[in-house]
Amino acid sequence: MRNMDNLNFSPIGNIKTPYQDSAPYQPVDTDDQEFFLQLEPEYATGLKDLDSFTYIYVLYYIDRLKATPKMEVSPPWATSQKVGLFASRSPARPNPIGLSVVRVKKIVGHRVYTSGLDVFDNTPLLDIKPYINDLDSKCDANNGWVQSMDDDEHLALHIQGIPHDY
Amino acid sequence: MRNMDNLNFSPIGNIKTPYQDSAPYQPVDTDDQEFFLQLEPEYATGLKDLDSFTYIYVLYYIDRLKATPKMEVSPPWATSQKVGLFASRSPARPNPIGLSVVRVKKIVGHRVYTSGLDVFDNTPLLDIKPYINDLDSKCDANNGWVQSMDDDEHLALHIQGIPHDY
Repeated sequence: MRNMDNLNFSPIGNIKTPYQDSAPYQPVDTDDQEFFLQLEPEYATGLKDLDSFTYIYVLYYIDRLKATPKMEVSPPWATSQKVGLFASRSPARPNPIGLSVVRVKKIVGHRVYTSGLDVFDNTPLLDIKPYINDLDSKCDANNGWVQSMDDDEHLALHIQGIPHDY
Repeated sequence: MRNMDNLNFSPIGNIKTPYQDSAPYQPVDTDDQEFFLQLEPEYATGLKDLDSFTYIYVLYYIDRLKATPKMEVSPPWATSQKVGLFASRSPARPNPIGLSVVRVKKIVGHRVYTSGLDVFDNTPLLDIKPYINDLDSKCDANNGWVQSMDDDEHLALHIQGIPHDY
């Protein structure tokens, strides 16, 4: 059944963030230049025109995680709920590929400044793709099992990493 | 600079599509059951609650491509334009990870039926993530360099894989 084991990938650079020992569960936007993608110099030309997009996808390798993936998980902000791993954004996955949608702020050489990214400093960068409105922005998307919870508006703040009082 | 070479991934299953020798550039939705994700049986429990989401992300390994990535590419539907590789969805990337947003139709055992997927039959599946409206649907996203082209509405049809007359 498995038609290909041991697929090999190499980082194309690193993600720089202020998070050395702890990171938010989801991206927090800031006005600073604290978040950037530092590509290997040979990839600089590949960044041409990327700043014509409002948003980009950042794909990275979740390198700090040593936990064995479990097929049912409880999100940190909804510990009473058990959901399937693939119905969650838990970092403990069979293939630990992280995916975030961020704003492009500016590109300087082989460095891409972005809005907040919920990853540790020096996380290995695997790929960047343009987030194309016609393809990726689904206005009829829902929040799945999250919206069936009692306190879903509150939970939505956690998902989005928006600071709030309680 | 490279902090980690040779990251290893293994497929969690395969993607089944009608495309043996050619595939559309972007997903085409259908009413059939032609498209599904066939996971390894041990991951079945991880699919719990996934059908509570309208859309999901499918991450896969672009296994048929042998071309060496070039840092500037011309999209097949815009051959006069040269754009940076990372500003494109070209499959020829340093790390050939494909990303598609599809609708969940139904889940039967360890099989996930989806809307159209722009990949060849038996493409190795790397991950499934829920597409969460609050996180992933960006209403203010643009179409980047695509919308600056003369015929951008026509091109948008190509991007979305919508059949049209000319």
